[in-house]
Amino acid sequence: MAGNVRVEQLQPQLRSAGVDLAVIRMTENVLFVSGHFVQIAGAGFAVVPAEGEATLLVPEYEAPEAAEVWGGALETFPVIRNDRPAALEVVRERLRALAVRHADGGSVGYEGSSETLAPPAQAGEAGAVALPTRRLFEEAFGGRELTDVTELLEATKAVKTGRELEKLEIANEIAGFGMLAFKEAARPGRTEVEIAAAVETAIEVPGHGDRGARVVRGYATVYSGPDLTDGWQYFRSRPRRVEPDELVMLELGTLVDGFWADHTRTVVAGRASSEQRAAYEAVREAAAAALAAAVPGATGGDVDATSRSTCASAGFAQFPHHTGHGLGFRLHESRPQLVPGGTHELRENMVLVAEPGIYQAEIAGGIRYEDAAVVGPGGARLLGGTDYGFDD
Amino acid sequence: MAGNVRVEQLQPQLRSAGVDLAVIRMTENVLFVSGHFVQIAGAGFAVVPAEGEATLLVPEYEAPEAAEVWGGALETFPVIRNDRPAALEVVRERLRALAVRHADGGSVGYEGSSETLAPPAQAGEAGAVALPTRRLFEEAFGGRELTDVTELLEATKAVKTGRELEKLEIANEIAGFGMLAFKEAARPGRTEVEIAAAVETAIEVPGHGDRGARVVRGYATVYSGPDLTDGWQYFRSRPRRVEPDELVMLELGTLVDGFWADHTRTVVAGRASSEQRAAYEAVREAAAAALAAAVPGATGGDVDATSRSTCASAGFAQFPHHTGHGLGFRLHESRPQLVPGGTHELRENMVLVAEPGIYQAEIAGGIRYEDAAVVGPGGARLLGGTDYGFDD
Repeated sequence: MAGNVRVEQLQPQLRSAGVDLAVIRMTENVLFVSGHFVQIAGAGFAVVPAEGEATLLVPEYEAPEAAEVWGGALETFPVIRNDRPAALEVVRERLRALAVRHADGGSVGYEGSSETLAPPAQAGEAGAVALPTRRLFEEAFGGRELTDVTELLEATKAVKTGRELEKLEIANEIAGFGMLAFKEAARPGRTEVEIAAAVETAIEVPGHGDRGARVVRGYATVYSGPDLTDGWQYFRSRPRRVEPDELVMLELGTLVDGFWADHTRTVVAGRASSEQRAAYEAVREAAAAALAAAVPGATGGDVDATSRSTCASAGFAQFPHHTGHGLGFRLHESRPQLVPGGTHELRENMVLVAEPGIYQAEIAGGIRYEDAAVVGPGGARLLGGTDYGFDD
Repeated sequence: MAGNVRVEQLQPQLRSAGVDLAVIRMTENVLFVSGHFVQIAGAGFAVVPAEGEATLLVPEYEAPEAAEVWGGALETFPVIRNDRPAALEVVRERLRALAVRHADGGSVGYEGSSETLAPPAQAGEAGAVALPTRRLFEEAFGGRELTDVTELLEATKAVKTGRELEKLEIANEIAGFGMLAFKEAARPGRTEVEIAAAVETAIEVPGHGDRGARVVRGYATVYSGPDLTDGWQYFRSRPRRVEPDELVMLELGTLVDGFWADHTRTVVAGRASSEQRAAYEAVREAAAAALAAAVPGATGGDVDATSRSTCASAGFAQFPHHTGHGLGFRLHESRPQLVPGGTHELRENMVLVAEPGIYQAEIAGGIRYEDAAVVGPGGARLLGGTDYGFDD
């Protein structure tokens, strides 16, 4: 069962940190540890002891699905219903029992620093770990010390397993449905919001069921015209109609069963100017050079520098936002960061994006291009993508 | 300027709590205090001193939009760019200066218990308040005590201002576009995901720009057929095709500039059975009775009991999930909760939903109906809605 690989990786690290058991509650971390994507944020707990079998606690109705991917102990608790014991009371008792079983004089690990988190798939609230969870753990574990294990989780998470890479391939494939729809829809006379809706529909309708995908959501933002020079950073789709020969940019996040893809495409709604074409080629070359430089042992700073120097060789200044970042269990994982001077060291099977951008009046807007790739000895291997052109 | 009403409400409460100044960081709380909807979660701070002028800190590019709604002091900091000081370094210095100006021997208020939070409008991460923010505040404020002001914020937030009610009217109006599209789309042969995409498109395309709306997102989940008897609680849209005369349920969250609408509609893709029609009428009557009972001074428990007894009078058992909840700055605000024995007291201009549901094999699925309304002396007044029928 896939979950156990992650448990096996975490246990020696917990022992080194003097942690008897870690209680993981954030949706994306429960997915990381167990392979199961909890629907209601906060209503799922992975309990990983430093030694012995890990336990996954999920709402009753999720047990069958969780059992498909999780090979450890599985316990359930009621949610939603008012005619049953309150969910957190049941969880507290179960945690207390697990704490007794796994008490060896150490502390309890928790996600103390995990205050940013992936958006949930539905409109219901996201769940982080702050005072209420600390209080729950204090009640469940008495006065035992809490140890923040966020860094340990983040570092382990950055290198993906085979199953996770397969899930990310699916997410990137489904994102491709949306990028194709973008190329079709980015036409003069269409509004930015119409184009964005076409992209999201192209992701959500064929995406559900594609290679087993169950929960799919597209987040498309489309921005167009000269405002791209500055406005790209405060991006939101507007009712603005695209004019002939204008630049149109798609920023796209795609969520598939808790795994994330992150893409940018820029096209011209008509014919590109020679300056725009040169800038587009510079951006594409910079992105390709960055991914080629993303080999095990390179640093985030190395990759960033490669992208910027490639852009500069083509006569353009790459904008000083990051060149890229890690991703997978969220749109932006904490590592590796591909930034000037970045010290994160790349390792095989890290997943990252390169997204160099040029924004200036000379090209009447801005151009960015972004794909995800898997770090390997020959450079990073693309996860999906598109092969359409920049203009008509 | 609208923001100041909230500041004036909060200041005496901060003084009573011995708080010199409160630093608000969660997107929905910054919106609540200032009227400004920050785009990047965590990249916006409202600093409310117990006395004197409040300050809003936003990214540089948001200053013009923030100034449209915020009348207090406005400061900016750089984000995204690597060629400028780091955002949090600038924020820390600005907080330090504000702390010196507003030091009177008291503590610093923060959102310590705010670990659940509204989804962001884009795919980027949501931001809660955990150890990293506490560390930022420790650096900015030295060793000053931190006081959790979450409860104070939640209680104040539950009663909406005139401007907020207007924003919620807009959100509910835009949600109505989606509910109309649902009635059109919920036909035999359509898949659940097709229907959901049609709803989201109907919200996002005409929604942007409607009465000034800038950021609009629909979260539609559609579920259909006999699986609704149990599966409604683990809801996700599937590639399943609706069969003739089946029940089809829409669960819909609508985000408009940081304000949320929450709706459920159930229709029949053809002709209802007599049992289904009776259950639908019971649910509608229960919802109407709940809203009529939502007057100032009533408790959440009173409203819940009214809904359940109305359902029972029609010969049905209302399912033991909550009858409803407060909302506005998120889909589920912490109060009032309309649950058995609920003690939250309703006040004029609280916004809440009633969403009674019946799920049983006798009706070949489940039926729920949900609208939002504003508490007033004559009962709660609906915010938008639809007037189409249950079946053909």
